[in-house]
Amino acid sequence: MDKIKFSDIRITGGLWRDKQDMVKNVTIDAVYNRFCETHRFEALKCTWKEGDPDCPHIFWDSDVAKWLESAAYIMATEERDEKLEKIFDDAVDLIVKNSDEHGYFNSHFLVTRQNERFCHRGEHELYCAGHLIEAAVAYYEATGKDKFLKAMCKYADYIEQVFKLEKSAEFFTPGHPELELALVRLYHATSDKRYLELSKYFIDEHGKPENGEISNNNYNQDDMPLRDRITADGHCVRALYLFCGMADIAYEYNDSGLLEACKRLFENITNRRMYITGGVGSTYMGESFTVDYDLPNRKAYAETCAAISLAMFAGRMQAIEPNSKYADIVEKVIYNGFLSGVSMDGKSFFYENPLEIDPGFNNKERFPITRRQEIFSCSCCPPNITRFIPSIAEYMYSYNDSVLYIHHYMNSETVGGSIGIVQETNYPADGEILIKCNIDKEYIALRIPGWCKSFKLSLPYEMKNGYAFVRLSGETEIRLTLDMPIEAIAANKRVHENAGRIAIMRGPVVYCAEGVDNGADLKNVRVDIHGNFELGSAEFLLPSIKTTGFRDADFDSLYKFADDAYEEFPLTLIPYYAFANRGTSEMLVWLLKK
Amino acid sequence: MDKIKFSDIRITGGLWRDKQDMVKNVTIDAVYNRFCETHRFEALKCTWKEGDPDCPHIFWDSDVAKWLESAAYIMATEERDEKLEKIFDDAVDLIVKNSDEHGYFNSHFLVTRQNERFCHRGEHELYCAGHLIEAAVAYYEATGKDKFLKAMCKYADYIEQVFKLEKSAEFFTPGHPELELALVRLYHATSDKRYLELSKYFIDEHGKPENGEISNNNYNQDDMPLRDRITADGHCVRALYLFCGMADIAYEYNDSGLLEACKRLFENITNRRMYITGGVGSTYMGESFTVDYDLPNRKAYAETCAAISLAMFAGRMQAIEPNSKYADIVEKVIYNGFLSGVSMDGKSFFYENPLEIDPGFNNKERFPITRRQEIFSCSCCPPNITRFIPSIAEYMYSYNDSVLYIHHYMNSETVGGSIGIVQETNYPADGEILIKCNIDKEYIALRIPGWCKSFKLSLPYEMKNGYAFVRLSGETEIRLTLDMPIEAIAANKRVHENAGRIAIMRGPVVYCAEGVDNGADLKNVRVDIHGNFELGSAEFLLPSIKTTGFRDADFDSLYKFADDAYEEFPLTLIPYYAFANRGTSEMLVWLLKK
Repeated sequence: MDKIKFSDIRITGGLWRDKQDMVKNVTIDAVYNRFCETHRFEALKCTWKEGDPDCPHIFWDSDVAKWLESAAYIMATEERDEKLEKIFDDAVDLIVKNSDEHGYFNSHFLVTRQNERFCHRGEHELYCAGHLIEAAVAYYEATGKDKFLKAMCKYADYIEQVFKLEKSAEFFTPGHPELELALVRLYHATSDKRYLELSKYFIDEHGKPENGEISNNNYNQDDMPLRDRITADGHCVRALYLFCGMADIAYEYNDSGLLEACKRLFENITNRRMYITGGVGSTYMGESFTVDYDLPNRKAYAETCAAISLAMFAGRMQAIEPNSKYADIVEKVIYNGFLSGVSMDGKSFFYENPLEIDPGFNNKERFPITRRQEIFSCSCCPPNITRFIPSIAEYMYSYNDSVLYIHHYMNSETVGGSIGIVQETNYPADGEILIKCNIDKEYIALRIPGWCKSFKLSLPYEMKNGYAFVRLSGETEIRLTLDMPIEAIAANKRVHENAGRIAIMRGPVVYCAEGVDNGADLKNVRVDIHGNFELGSAEFLLPSIKTTGFRDADFDSLYKFADDAYEEFPLTLIPYYAFANRGTSEMLVWLLKK
Repeated sequence: MDKIKFSDIRITGGLWRDKQDMVKNVTIDAVYNRFCETHRFEALKCTWKEGDPDCPHIFWDSDVAKWLESAAYIMATEERDEKLEKIFDDAVDLIVKNSDEHGYFNSHFLVTRQNERFCHRGEHELYCAGHLIEAAVAYYEATGKDKFLKAMCKYADYIEQVFKLEKSAEFFTPGHPELELALVRLYHATSDKRYLELSKYFIDEHGKPENGEISNNNYNQDDMPLRDRITADGHCVRALYLFCGMADIAYEYNDSGLLEACKRLFENITNRRMYITGGVGSTYMGESFTVDYDLPNRKAYAETCAAISLAMFAGRMQAIEPNSKYADIVEKVIYNGFLSGVSMDGKSFFYENPLEIDPGFNNKERFPITRRQEIFSCSCCPPNITRFIPSIAEYMYSYNDSVLYIHHYMNSETVGGSIGIVQETNYPADGEILIKCNIDKEYIALRIPGWCKSFKLSLPYEMKNGYAFVRLSGETEIRLTLDMPIEAIAANKRVHENAGRIAIMRGPVVYCAEGVDNGADLKNVRVDIHGNFELGSAEFLLPSIKTTGFRDADFDSLYKFADDAYEEFPLTLIPYYAFANRGTSEMLVWLLKK
């Protein structure tokens, strides 16, 4: 199916309008300034010499590229911005100037290890190339300027030659996937099918035996051909970028074997290996998936980039085969494990997004950080946030000849393209959505979210795969009311970490308790799922939740005879995405079930 | 107070008779054979040369010394054993032969680094010396043979000269304490007060500024003078051996400042940093204490040697100042976190004693082992078990001119010495204890354990510091009945790990659930503290416990709306000390409270 491009949609209000304003007004500059301070932009000059400080890191080009892609998206949705455009053009000039005669550009290898080009699978050259290609496509689409795009086509041609035609590189497939999906974008921007074919080539080669031997290392998803994969293993971001490339190729080539693999992997992740926040990655060791149902909360890795890449994968699946389970995961990610990655003021970031913070027990073993930081040495997440938020509307709609699918509800209107559709809603502050459209389709299909037990539609409908199909005739106004009560959610009993515990959700939004509101020892707080829950103030865009908490009485000794005496207190829950915005504090998603 | 020596007490039945038989018939040989296979005994020959395999390790002498001490204890309580005595005498001959002209013996430094003697505080020379001294004292007391004792006196004299008189060593106090308490034993065996004074010297020096600077490293308890310590920090076994030395010196010198420090440390450990099993050590990093209330179950370090050393410390405190809280801890340790260290067949051992095993989630991060092993590369625990069990009766009694204190109940009779006392009991299988004595004291004081809410005594008594004082007149028979119901115990709410959970105890014995009896997902099992609990069969010496367990129904998805539907099933609990004797299995002490 086709999608309505995000650049043809204007978010006109609500949470995402706030977040897009934040990125445009604060975050894009904050990330740029940190990247300048750390010489990431300067690295494009390729003037570093042995003995100089701050050798360009192998992944710096990808950081800069994602920032550039972000700037392009802001220009695509807002107006052209001279300052951003100047930074962009200057960067492009440097990249083009310093690309070699083959079109190769890498600010690390060009200045440090010219002779080791394409020798080290683990050193991110093709990953950086992929991000540069994505930035070039984005800039071309936002501004029509094609200097960067042409340079990146030349680079892609060179990669095709080295990896596919000559097979002269020291490795066969990207160590950190990203190029695969970037090449599909390059194909769409240029209509040159060689780029699609190169992407398919990498997907086909990935996990094949090398020198006759299958790797037993799943860190890079190398342990079997991709069509055979059953479980999501290894480094989460690598895995999910790769699965995005698989989904793209499955769609473009109508490759049912590859699509089945994508579906299996989606099920394995979302039914076995995903935090309730949409976070993935259960261990910092290899930033990786572990085993089914292993979801430690305090040591959750749940990298912001992994959440983004899960949304990217689910977004592709939602457009290939409309089933609300895909869009449900996009939604789970964007309101929770993704959005927690950036502070409310837009200036600082989490790399990991734990579901529990317990600062009193920060001991010598590794533990999650408790405060967001303005930059990381491995600073992939901040520019991934700045490119995701301005382009979030890309996930809203897809369509074929007869049906327009509404996957996500955001106060918005289309501002270009062939399809005119308006949504008036405060979603997810509440579940009232007014849809106005006048489109040349037989049906409009409205996703009924998995979290929603009951809803009302102002027109007759038929349910199919989690979507309510409404027949259209001319200009249509549809009122959808999604009941959005506060719900207690339990985890499968195999998730030992959450045994005896519940999480509170309202609509797609996961809530958490913080020490700053509720005092210490949150692990000890019980909630009665049959108790009274009320909405409170909306300090962090969406309302807080109030209920009665129960905790053990204080006593001095370490152990005592058990009893049923609890102290009641007013418990305040805030949206999970807003945790850690008021200093260091305990935080907990999974509360004891009374 | 004086103690009745263990060698004057014969355990005549019950759990400890079984365990003493196990050590005598199985464990002492098993450990010896493993030590021979690994060349630990051979190292005493001091013939290793550069290039040879199996260089003697810095702590091997301590392993051998503890085995020798164990053999001496078996001979002291059972009969002389030709085979053990031959091994012992051969070892002594080698040690004496290879000691140098100063009396120095160390099978590692003598063959590898003669020039580095007493240069490395962290390399266990004084620790090994301490264990050799303890073994020599034990053998002298068991057999009257004094060859080893004399050699060790000479070695101790040399240590006095180097460390106290000349101060010519490269360090000032033992890096791994042990020598301090060994010197007190040597003083008692020889009546030479210089050994006591040398021990006091080390205690006084420990934690003093070196070169004018206080260390900020608490790993070796170096961060302040011992009299100033408030919290138990650093390596658990080092800390507790040191606290034993402190308690010995506090007692011998009637040093109230040092005794107060011991009391503070005892309170800090037992009210803030101790597992319900009596285990200590919350992290494998430095095998150490961490912070108050940090008691992770699955990653509990809780080394067997740490449990032993806590019993040693509590045992010293119980004899200095009779308050039942000290003997309660000895008891907690010996029936739980100590006894779990050896398999029911007596052949294999735990170094760590976790309170939870979850083999399904053994991922790449470090996790506790799930099966006992026959030997470890650092095999301190096995010979510590073999010396503890034969001498356990040492903890039973202490006395002053007017009172005989009974700290612990074991089916037993005195077989020598001046005090005749018999206990007839199945304790802790039940709480019935018949005590027969005819002793020249005004009172006999019977400990009423902290776990006991109600008891009956056949004679009038007065309670004082947890002891029931009964006035004696000639031959006396006392029947003590300790009610021993099955109890649910809660942890302080600051122990976040145990929030919402209870442990089941009966008398001093902590129980656990194992997967082999109860199926998977034990973390999910709830227990109704008001439910029916019954005693079951005694497969592992003490009865099992039967009650109804409740667990969440099975469902396929990862998350669902919470409800109150539980499946009931018959839950079987076994004594914690008996876990991991039936293959790899889940194990859990802290069960969800329904």
